[in-house]
Amino acid sequence: MIKASKFSLQAGLFDDLGGKFSAPAQQNGKEQLNFLKGDPTYYGNVDVKMPQAGYDIVKKSILNPKNHSYAASNGSIAARNAIAKHFGGSNMTITGNDVILTHGANMGLFISLMSITNSGDNILVPEPGYPFFHKNGPSVGVEARSYKLNPEKGYQIDLEHLATLVDEKTRFLWVVNPSNPFGSIFPKEHIEEIFAFCRKHKLFIISDEVYWNESFSDYEFISLGHATTDVPVIVIGGMEKTFLVPGWGISWMIFFDQNQKLKEVKGACLTTCQLCLHPCSFLMSALPELLDTLTADFTKNFMKTFEENYNYLYEEFSNIKGIKPIPAQGTFYISVLVDLQQFKNFKSDIDFLQALNEEENIQILPLSVFKGDTQGFRMMSCATKKIYESFIPRLVEFCERHSKSN
Amino acid sequence: MIKASKFSLQAGLFDDLGGKFSAPAQQNGKEQLNFLKGDPTYYGNVDVKMPQAGYDIVKKSILNPKNHSYAASNGSIAARNAIAKHFGGSNMTITGNDVILTHGANMGLFISLMSITNSGDNILVPEPGYPFFHKNGPSVGVEARSYKLNPEKGYQIDLEHLATLVDEKTRFLWVVNPSNPFGSIFPKEHIEEIFAFCRKHKLFIISDEVYWNESFSDYEFISLGHATTDVPVIVIGGMEKTFLVPGWGISWMIFFDQNQKLKEVKGACLTTCQLCLHPCSFLMSALPELLDTLTADFTKNFMKTFEENYNYLYEEFSNIKGIKPIPAQGTFYISVLVDLQQFKNFKSDIDFLQALNEEENIQILPLSVFKGDTQGFRMMSCATKKIYESFIPRLVEFCERHSKSN
Repeated sequence: MIKASKFSLQAGLFDDLGGKFSAPAQQNGKEQLNFLKGDPTYYGNVDVKMPQAGYDIVKKSILNPKNHSYAASNGSIAARNAIAKHFGGSNMTITGNDVILTHGANMGLFISLMSITNSGDNILVPEPGYPFFHKNGPSVGVEARSYKLNPEKGYQIDLEHLATLVDEKTRFLWVVNPSNPFGSIFPKEHIEEIFAFCRKHKLFIISDEVYWNESFSDYEFISLGHATTDVPVIVIGGMEKTFLVPGWGISWMIFFDQNQKLKEVKGACLTTCQLCLHPCSFLMSALPELLDTLTADFTKNFMKTFEENYNYLYEEFSNIKGIKPIPAQGTFYISVLVDLQQFKNFKSDIDFLQALNEEENIQILPLSVFKGDTQGFRMMSCATKKIYESFIPRLVEFCERHSKSN
Repeated sequence: MIKASKFSLQAGLFDDLGGKFSAPAQQNGKEQLNFLKGDPTYYGNVDVKMPQAGYDIVKKSILNPKNHSYAASNGSIAARNAIAKHFGGSNMTITGNDVILTHGANMGLFISLMSITNSGDNILVPEPGYPFFHKNGPSVGVEARSYKLNPEKGYQIDLEHLATLVDEKTRFLWVVNPSNPFGSIFPKEHIEEIFAFCRKHKLFIISDEVYWNESFSDYEFISLGHATTDVPVIVIGGMEKTFLVPGWGISWMIFFDQNQKLKEVKGACLTTCQLCLHPCSFLMSALPELLDTLTADFTKNFMKTFEENYNYLYEEFSNIKGIKPIPAQGTFYISVLVDLQQFKNFKSDIDFLQALNEEENIQILPLSVFKGDTQGFRMMSCATKKIYESFIPRLVEFCERHSKSN
């Protein structure tokens, strides 16, 4: 047998759950409900798709034979200019030269990792959090130092804890806002605290904003790129979650870097992105018209639906003994704590959810896959009310069945 | 200034030529002719595009809202099955489970590098050759050992030289067939020699076949994947060069591995590909119908045009003093040796081509960027006859102007 690399032994995204959440063989005729994926379009909710006008622009783009060729590896200049125009903010002048288009936002994270860090360096990552760097940092010899989030303050960054992690080998602070799995949205004051922290410790920020603008009605999303003046920020974003086309791979890195501190880093990212083909060429050609038509406010069309679902789920979860929903301010997730003490046989959230899968044919992602010791689950709030009305009674019965009180 | 990584200092594709082939400021009214790119569609040759039927299948796929979601990171099973069906050959049973879809063939090379090799290992690469591993191997501590190609035998692999490079740290043999830059197509006997070599040295092959089936009328392309029985072969392929849609990023790795020797390697590639988004989702959805309609014989539609251009260029180049075309058996390149001794002021092919650029506004890729000591240029043969008829006299005049005989 030919051996695999050491890199591949650690790399990847979520831990392999060993098929624990594959639909069970014995389903007892129960309808499958799968809430695992970070994909807002997964449920085919009619309120949650790109409008026909968007598809039509792409159809038109296909017909031009010139739109199928290679572009520059950082993306065509017209497409990069469109991203700069719609996502560049007004605090500083952002042009297409500050933008690298990537096929998927993960590629932006990977390009960052490979272009900025060396083996022996460390980076600061949220825990719980999307485990991209937690896994892939160590696979290239880079320590992912997990900083705590403060449950008392809407899972904002625990800056006191963060300060204990920084040393001379720290390369960057990774911020995920709006956050996954909690759906937190950082208020202006917290963003200013983060900038003050970075000034003090001479750090720059990779701000993962793939849930860009997905805020509920009472909250305002503020891009760290738009808010910064002096602290260098690389924003990672994309159309995947915010324009309801996860499979397109129209994603980007935007360098907000007034003082050119990231000049060498940007050059390195341009080198690394030569290994990764730019996004699909005719989608890039369609991008300027697509963004002008749909506008960066597009999320408002569907966030209302997600917020209604969230409110419904929050209230229902609040009434179930043994679990407790975490307040969110946006995204299409609602995270729920599971108090394992209140159940008979569960040693972990994975046990809880594996039993839910086996008994109810319902698949939900455990919070523990986001690292850290928070036990619970991350629920998608982008399905339909009808689906949730069928889901809740099944969850209620499941929890009662396993409760220590019974 | 924040520093870039060591990786990024070596990574990339072609060496940075420092803008030497940017169109010159002083163009003396001469029409720009750019033959740099490995893109068959670059010239908008009407004989060289996907037919309307192909575009129509994609347009149809866009309209289904389900075709915009995430798929499995190795690609949707329907699309993988379609690749297995059309490119799996008949020597062994290839299914969708033997296929990983990648966004661009470079990604397949990069996934291979990261999933198979460790720092300190070495891999065997052709020189001259597409410099992917030459550059990116060392960037992750993997030595790219260059094997010679035999000019006397159509730039086939010099197996005697190859044998001197193998040691216990050698992980794989990279074969590029049809070859870039020479357009060689390996005959059956040579392929059998390569297999015998691999058996003896216990090596497996990564067979880069992005120019799949692009053979001239007198030659037959044979996929190493289709020819192998016992030697494990990973074929890297894609629609980019062969279906005239380089910008789509529909590419693949196919594991021809009858005896399951690559089982662990395939698992590692599946892990690594989680970092890279699958190809555009609605293109994957269109793929089964697209391949059934266009068929794997699609290249025949345009290879006739390329062969005519090749023949014209070969004859014209043969008549120019100081340069000598290399016979090709396929692809859309013709490589040409430059005898620097016959020119007054050129120390390298880069000097020659930089002068051609400055004086004639004609951009061509030097052979030296493919590594090795071959001096010359790689010409695209996928433009139109009209363009070549305007190109040749300008090249003739340029060569005469700089000839030592004048």
